[in-house]
Amino acid sequence: MLDRPFSLAQLRIVLVGTSHPGNIGGVARAMKNMGLADLALVAPRCEVRTSEAISRASGADALVAAAPIHASLDDAVADATLVVGASARSRTLPWPMFTPRQLSDALADELTSREARVALVFGREDSGLTNDELQRCHRHVCIPANPDFSSLNLAAAVQVLAYECRQAWLQDSPPGVNKNPRIDKEPATFGLEWDSPLASHDDLERFFTHLERALIAVEFHDPAKPRQLMARLRRLYLRARPDQMEISILRGILTAMEKKAKNAR
Amino acid sequence: MLDRPFSLAQLRIVLVGTSHPGNIGGVARAMKNMGLADLALVAPRCEVRTSEAISRASGADALVAAAPIHASLDDAVADATLVVGASARSRTLPWPMFTPRQLSDALADELTSREARVALVFGREDSGLTNDELQRCHRHVCIPANPDFSSLNLAAAVQVLAYECRQAWLQDSPPGVNKNPRIDKEPATFGLEWDSPLASHDDLERFFTHLERALIAVEFHDPAKPRQLMARLRRLYLRARPDQMEISILRGILTAMEKKAKNAR
Repeated sequence: MLDRPFSLAQLRIVLVGTSHPGNIGGVARAMKNMGLADLALVAPRCEVRTSEAISRASGADALVAAAPIHASLDDAVADATLVVGASARSRTLPWPMFTPRQLSDALADELTSREARVALVFGREDSGLTNDELQRCHRHVCIPANPDFSSLNLAAAVQVLAYECRQAWLQDSPPGVNKNPRIDKEPATFGLEWDSPLASHDDLERFFTHLERALIAVEFHDPAKPRQLMARLRRLYLRARPDQMEISILRGILTAMEKKAKNAR
Repeated sequence: MLDRPFSLAQLRIVLVGTSHPGNIGGVARAMKNMGLADLALVAPRCEVRTSEAISRASGADALVAAAPIHASLDDAVADATLVVGASARSRTLPWPMFTPRQLSDALADELTSREARVALVFGREDSGLTNDELQRCHRHVCIPANPDFSSLNLAAAVQVLAYECRQAWLQDSPPGVNKNPRIDKEPATFGLEWDSPLASHDDLERFFTHLERALIAVEFHDPAKPRQLMARLRRLYLRARPDQMEISILRGILTAMEKKAKNAR
């Protein structure tokens, strides 16, 4: 296991009073997609392990099967060192509030100790968490949403927060470690090991010389009336940072052009 | 209303070959929650406006009702200045890749001009986007997920990206000034307003059609033995984000090539 700032096993998703088994399945899928596994249910208002839950879980139904069912929120978060309640509504009593991004930023510090546990608590589909439940939370978190249409689907809300938690988990990984083979951690454009090395300055200059010669050959370019043609083409190709194979393809095209120009009447 | 860096109306969600009406409804809800409204469907593989779609939309069904249904991806993104394809799998031919966060960071610069449009393209529930569809995109975006369970529900994937787009929109940065919308992560390099508007998807597709014709004419390309030639050239030119004048220069070169080929012995 890599040296992460914390383990995703230190995070728990708690669903209170859920009404729709499909949503429980959807939550399980969103959790497993983001690498979370600890799901707890508090007083669900529906059957939990239905075919709809299994179908929406799409392969994450083991999380539903393993989820303990508690009678009270207190039981579900008993060992948590930070309890964060999802709150869509503004309440009469203001509470310390996170955005999902702020929660993400705080996570590594919260979970420094291996015994630390963060519980993210989500309420009922129709009415959220009660004031009493919200007041059992250290912090509230609110997903910034369209004020005219602010109620997210339960699984969608879990998806956003689990995504932010995973971002925090991925962030401080040591250099050279591949979190995901397809994503480069550098804030660069190319997210993969490229399949051909970058062309060198020399390669590029030889290409530009060849390009100008071929454009003259096909009578597109007149060096006596250069306009900004070569400057514009340089800007275009340099911007793309061509690799060696791309330069070799482009030069092959130039050679084919020159051959046709030579053989033209 | 604050002075936002861009308008959320400049963002389009495109769903290709969706199989489940419930997912279309779920996507509509996720979009409306995040303040997006422009939904386009390409060749859906199901009835679209079903009771399941309306139920999952939970009040966002107007987006489904208003969504145009296109026969091809090209039609759905014809006016887009940046086309980003959601990709879960690693491909044989690597493509410039964003994380959702990098996409979010790039958005204000991409949408500086009020005519700019960003299209986020999502594929089939079972098989995603085809290679041909992915090769019509300037960039790919991949949600960093559990490598052992990486396939998100369609509405969940849209939720994450729409959330990141909304985060970018909410950021109190002033409108992007003096930034070249075409250069990723190198804002200091070309600190000037660009001198020609970006080429649209349509412009680019016409260019690629012309390019292939000209390469056949000079006998560099044999469609019977395509290798990865056109895919590699697409990747090169899409990466550079050509402007309208550059496309016009390149097409001038192609026309000159064809003329010589026609007159060659």
